[in-house]
Amino acid sequence: MNELIEKMIAPVFANPALLKAHDGSVVNVQSKKIAMTTDSYVIHPLFFPGGDIGSLAVHGTVNDLAMCGAKPLYMSVGFILEEGLPMETLWQVIRSIKEAAQKSGIQIVTGDTKVVDKGKADGIFINTTGVGAVEHKLDISPQSVKKGDAIILSGDIGRHGIAIMAVREGLEFETKIESDSAPLWNPIKDLLKKNIRIHCLRDLTRGGLASALVEISKKANVAIQIDERAIPVREDVKGACEILGFDPLYVANEGRFICFVDGKEKDAVLKILGKSASLIGTVMDSKTSKVTLKSFIGTTRIVDMLSGDQLPRIC
Amino acid sequence: MNELIEKMIAPVFANPALLKAHDGSVVNVQSKKIAMTTDSYVIHPLFFPGGDIGSLAVHGTVNDLAMCGAKPLYMSVGFILEEGLPMETLWQVIRSIKEAAQKSGIQIVTGDTKVVDKGKADGIFINTTGVGAVEHKLDISPQSVKKGDAIILSGDIGRHGIAIMAVREGLEFETKIESDSAPLWNPIKDLLKKNIRIHCLRDLTRGGLASALVEISKKANVAIQIDERAIPVREDVKGACEILGFDPLYVANEGRFICFVDGKEKDAVLKILGKSASLIGTVMDSKTSKVTLKSFIGTTRIVDMLSGDQLPRIC
Repeated sequence: MNELIEKMIAPVFANPALLKAHDGSVVNVQSKKIAMTTDSYVIHPLFFPGGDIGSLAVHGTVNDLAMCGAKPLYMSVGFILEEGLPMETLWQVIRSIKEAAQKSGIQIVTGDTKVVDKGKADGIFINTTGVGAVEHKLDISPQSVKKGDAIILSGDIGRHGIAIMAVREGLEFETKIESDSAPLWNPIKDLLKKNIRIHCLRDLTRGGLASALVEISKKANVAIQIDERAIPVREDVKGACEILGFDPLYVANEGRFICFVDGKEKDAVLKILGKSASLIGTVMDSKTSKVTLKSFIGTTRIVDMLSGDQLPRIC
Repeated sequence: MNELIEKMIAPVFANPALLKAHDGSVVNVQSKKIAMTTDSYVIHPLFFPGGDIGSLAVHGTVNDLAMCGAKPLYMSVGFILEEGLPMETLWQVIRSIKEAAQKSGIQIVTGDTKVVDKGKADGIFINTTGVGAVEHKLDISPQSVKKGDAIILSGDIGRHGIAIMAVREGLEFETKIESDSAPLWNPIKDLLKKNIRIHCLRDLTRGGLASALVEISKKANVAIQIDERAIPVREDVKGACEILGFDPLYVANEGRFICFVDGKEKDAVLKILGKSASLIGTVMDSKTSKVTLKSFIGTTRIVDMLSGDQLPRIC
């Protein structure tokens, strides 16, 4: 679908905001800069360890705004419901949306509900669109990424995807793996408040860390080198990935991001983000866009977009 | 669903913007007023005389903003696609969205596409969210409706619903009935430019003219009297309604609105809106909210919300 969107839809709607191909768009309203982002949530199952479709939709919206460096302000919620959906299920999701929105400091200001016949949808689909205020003067986008930039990862990866797969496949692990789904505006706000000159931000959703890095390397036309030993993956997640045949680098997260800053600012960023964050790589002096990974055993390999099927309906 | 939304969802998300229960919400971003509105489109069939799901989604968004008196600026488009959807169908819809957006003067700035398994959706669902700029100081809402207000209807009613039903039921009428689907910002812009002090605006979508009037009468706690003879319904639409057992007052429109203004301004409004517009009623001196209709034969009856099934998937 990523390819489909890039090749088919975006050029048709071509405009400067869309062509930046970021998580959201930054546009002007009466000379004020606002960010706008949209996502549909079709996750299956609706409930999973660490969250549900409702909290996920709120976090996804907040995070896409945060990745533009925008303060989340308002969001819409559009439900498409399948006839016959138990009311209790809808209630649970609604309560979860409310709670997540309150915790994330975003206001739900408009909504819509459509019901379709049984068999014409799958329980609940949710579309959310977020609007945020851009109060900084930075150009937070792949275009700002430069040679010498440090790449900082905000926490351990792979938990959301594995949590979903575990429920879907009925797998039991020794420890319960919970999704990392969480709002990310607070750490970004802290970075902006301390005047960190952020070059680029990206949350690591569909396609995981690897796809985010490859996409940014392509857009920015830079080479990126990362160090596998610096990327935190929990032991149980690592084990589950081995069993399921996944590479944690490609597994979706819903509460993790990477931040590109000038190498000189890396210590300040690490200090602000706290001990869960780690420096995982740098932007190299090269004219070719590529991502290389130094593995645990010291070898180097190219990291590419996942070809073929990604995990469907992970968000 | 209207009841479900009112009784269940809105109170949970209670905030002043949502509680106004308008087509969209007006909120502040850095002291500038913006309007925000969302809708999902699940219309069946995807293509119909006078439009398709794509143009409908754009017009719906533009119109909900226009009904807040907001200049449409930006919109998001979220697709939920059913696996196996013919590419040509998607292309047609995308082209239609592009064309309708260009004609309506709204920019598509962000988008999302999700694909679900065959049988888990129905071809194409679209969610659009619009953002517009509020550049006037009026409070355009049911709360501003007052005794003595004139109610002006922008054109003939009933075409969208009948066009859909005709395709769905395979009916052939002597003349082809095309949907009235159209963007409504231009007439509203003209009213604002001429300093008409608009009290309330409402487009006549699901539930038609009758439901819009009943809803406004309830919110504003006023009695409304309308005159059936003043409401334009095309002869072929009237005939189709008779065959299908519909009352044109309840049939959905996608390019018609009503405007409440002080009685003294009615002639100015009629002049600006042109010859398709008509004065259909007034707000009465009464403390009970109700809508009464003076019929063709001179009798008076109460107009109520449609109880039971409305036409499903009409938008």
